[in-house]
Amino acid sequence: MEVKLLSHTPEPERVVATAARLCYAPQAAAEVWSGFTPDKQQEFIGKLASYGLFSPFEHVVFTFAIAGVSRALSHQLVRHRIASYSQRSQRYINEAAFAVVVPPTVAADPAAREEFARIIGQIQDGYNRLTALGIPKEDARYLLPNACQTQLIMTMNARSLLHFFSLRCCRRAQWEIRELAWKIRREVFKVAPLLFREAGPACLSQGKCSEGAMTCGQPYKREDVNTEH
Amino acid sequence: MEVKLLSHTPEPERVVATAARLCYAPQAAAEVWSGFTPDKQQEFIGKLASYGLFSPFEHVVFTFAIAGVSRALSHQLVRHRIASYSQRSQRYINEAAFAVVVPPTVAADPAAREEFARIIGQIQDGYNRLTALGIPKEDARYLLPNACQTQLIMTMNARSLLHFFSLRCCRRAQWEIRELAWKIRREVFKVAPLLFREAGPACLSQGKCSEGAMTCGQPYKREDVNTEH
Amino acid sequence: MEVKLLSHTPEPERVVATAARLCYAPQAAAEVWSGFTPDKQQEFIGKLASYGLFSPFEHVVFTFAIAGVSRALSHQLVRHRIASYSQRSQRYINEAAFAVVVPPTVAADPAAREEFARIIGQIQDGYNRLTALGIPKEDARYLLPNACQTQLIMTMNARSLLHFFSLRCCRRAQWEIRELAWKIRREVFKVAPLLFREAGPACLSQGKCSEGAMTCGQPYKREDVNTEH
Amino acid sequence: MEVKLLSHTPEPERVVATAARLCYAPQAAAEVWSGFTPDKQQEFIGKLASYGLFSPFEHVVFTFAIAGVSRALSHQLVRHRIASYSQRSQRYINEAAFAVVVPPTVAADPAAREEFARIIGQIQDGYNRLTALGIPKEDARYLLPNACQTQLIMTMNARSLLHFFSLRCCRRAQWEIRELAWKIRREVFKVAPLLFREAGPACLSQGKCSEGAMTCGQPYKREDVNTEH
Repeated sequence: MEVKLLSHTPEPERVVATAARLCYAPQAAAEVWSGFTPDKQQEFIGKLASYGLFSPFEHVVFTFAIAGVSRALSHQLVRHRIASYSQRSQRYINEAAFAVVVPPTVAADPAAREEFARIIGQIQDGYNRLTALGIPKEDARYLLPNACQTQLIMTMNARSLLHFFSLRCCRRAQWEIRELAWKIRREVFKVAPLLFREAGPACLSQGKCSEGAMTCGQPYKREDVNTEH
Repeated sequence: MEVKLLSHTPEPERVVATAARLCYAPQAAAEVWSGFTPDKQQEFIGKLASYGLFSPFEHVVFTFAIAGVSRALSHQLVRHRIASYSQRSQRYINEAAFAVVVPPTVAADPAAREEFARIIGQIQDGYNRLTALGIPKEDARYLLPNACQTQLIMTMNARSLLHFFSLRCCRRAQWEIRELAWKIRREVFKVAPLLFREAGPACLSQGKCSEGAMTCGQPYKREDVNTEH
Repeated sequence: MEVKLLSHTPEPERVVATAARLCYAPQAAAEVWSGFTPDKQQEFIGKLASYGLFSPFEHVVFTFAIAGVSRALSHQLVRHRIASYSQRSQRYINEAAFAVVVPPTVAADPAAREEFARIIGQIQDGYNRLTALGIPKEDARYLLPNACQTQLIMTMNARSLLHFFSLRCCRRAQWEIRELAWKIRREVFKVAPLLFREAGPACLSQGKCSEGAMTCGQPYKREDVNTEH
Repeated sequence: MEVKLLSHTPEPERVVATAARLCYAPQAAAEVWSGFTPDKQQEFIGKLASYGLFSPFEHVVFTFAIAGVSRALSHQLVRHRIASYSQRSQRYINEAAFAVVVPPTVAADPAAREEFARIIGQIQDGYNRLTALGIPKEDARYLLPNACQTQLIMTMNARSLLHFFSLRCCRRAQWEIRELAWKIRREVFKVAPLLFREAGPACLSQGKCSEGAMTCGQPYKREDVNTEH
């Protein structure tokens, strides 16, 4: 899995702070903007988060190139509707040599790994035989497995990212989208630490688990997640 | 493929007409509502469509149970973001005996059909062997093909449906989602003919193709599509 | 302020329960639907809420006619973007005899009340003089006050309503939109008590305040709010 | 009215071209990105527009500081739901010396202008008397007129902007939001001419009016609008 931050709103923290401040300040936007020193940004954004005022976080967006993920993941990912996606099309691109994502539980078990590889090989052969018979790519792809790798460009604003992290960084989330969520979190934390320092599941953002009886019992700690890159 | 209209806003045409009329009328909503005879609804909704005023169409929604469609279709379907979806989960449901959608081009070619069935059979065996080895369902599903049948409940408002039909009823749309779009159109036309009589690709809604050089050259005719059920 | 539930998805609780159950059940939707007795609906919807699974709540919508509210309220209301609105237009409707919303603090103070009424009267005269001078309604309305009454038809799904109630039913919300939120809550609780019995600010839905140092100190109690109509 | 482009996605045309190309290209995103010379971007984006493929336009956003506009405008503006807004609050900011937007029809007529100014003056006095009587700002504001100036920060993606321009740049749109739409169009055209050269009402984007019998008869010409700044 590769996650590359392709582009993002410049000076994201200043944009969020300015947008938020504008609601309560008599000054003009330009004045608010120029008055926001990094120190003041930090103080102000901290307050926003503590009051649960996240609408100004919508003004900054982050665009990622995501590769080496499965179609199982992408089907789940695009359910996050407050975001934009452009995805590699199996209708138009020949998948004669598709790559796959192997689940860790499969990779860890020699018998399962061999079986998995064998079936993938047969799917590959079947796909190629169908296209050789003249079946259009868009129909041959009906054989392709969820494991098939795909590639996307995704743009999400900071507020929607916070929601995404709250669901998908949790240890109870499905492993592949959880890995993606953490990779994305690392990227955005690098460029906008003030916006994302409390981002994550409830153990990080609220200081206590929200999963009730389903809790994993292993809360993340902010000092761990914000320094590991 | 089965499409069942599970539920919808009662009196959808009266709701749309009332919402639209309220913007321009000094009367109270209740009075507008009770004053809308079917004849007046017809005249008024016709005007809305001719002026391109579709926002009142958002007030009515239609909920469908959709079954016997592929995961290829569902991945494409859920990209329509102004809608709500609940989908059968491959993480939680055992797919030991999954059914598949066979593309017509495959079904029509004996060699392709046989090859397709053979590979599906091997995937089925592989999935079952993995779960027998103790691999969790959520990981064994990485073998499952796009052809695997799924089931969804989808709710979409009439404005979003008009957009969906404009893209997916077109002869140039992918065959499976096009079949779904037409089945849905038939269902909603039955219960709200005034809202949907011009619904469809540009050949139906605008009277001329919007595909330029890619045109199929076979425009739909309103008299055909609105009577075929 | 008048709030009338104009229309809603029939059998809203059954729709939500069916949509949610479909994700985890091998049965067909029709079978899930018919198997949901009221008792089972109650048990199942209770579980959804306790796990924080609210996406199935999107499948049911409620349409309201709202009248006698101010333009101050409507400007705030339409910021809730996951909803549909049709609003009385000040561009097209003559406001020669507009009515106003009087804030309780003004109504309670004789001097303020008199001053308020006097200014409103002058605005009314000014509006009429402008239109008499040939100024178009859409420009004369620039004089109209925030207090001016408006009328809307609004459609919101149950998930978006839960969010709306969490913000606007709170004692710290602005008084007019809070009154609206409670009136709406009463209406939807009548027709879908299972969906809305915990709806409201954090004191109701979570059992504890989320406002931190800004808490009002007067938590709502479920037994009060769910029986008062 | 002041419109300042506060921030935007860097290299917006390259982002759109890369996202669109990724759907149909076997290469990795990074390779697609680096391969897009300005000439190729121009050719490729031209094709997207001609095919009506606008979803890649969602990946780039533009953030504006908007000042000196009326609350009549802002109430209309925020109805565009695929956008983010932060607006100066009349609940929290003292409007003891509010400024107003004067409609051109009023400004052009001495009697109307005088009447308008007189009423605004009385509203101002009334607002100040109410606050002097101890009425909270959030209630005194019920007197404030639609003409009252406000300030917003707005973020909108390029696809949503195209839709906004199609409705609001039209000569039949209300004059104030039309002025705003053109000012915004000029700003984005400066930094992303390939994305916006056909942006505007149907006379610009489609080459023919979509208003039917309501046509203004004065179509905009691309060579005029794209050079006037």
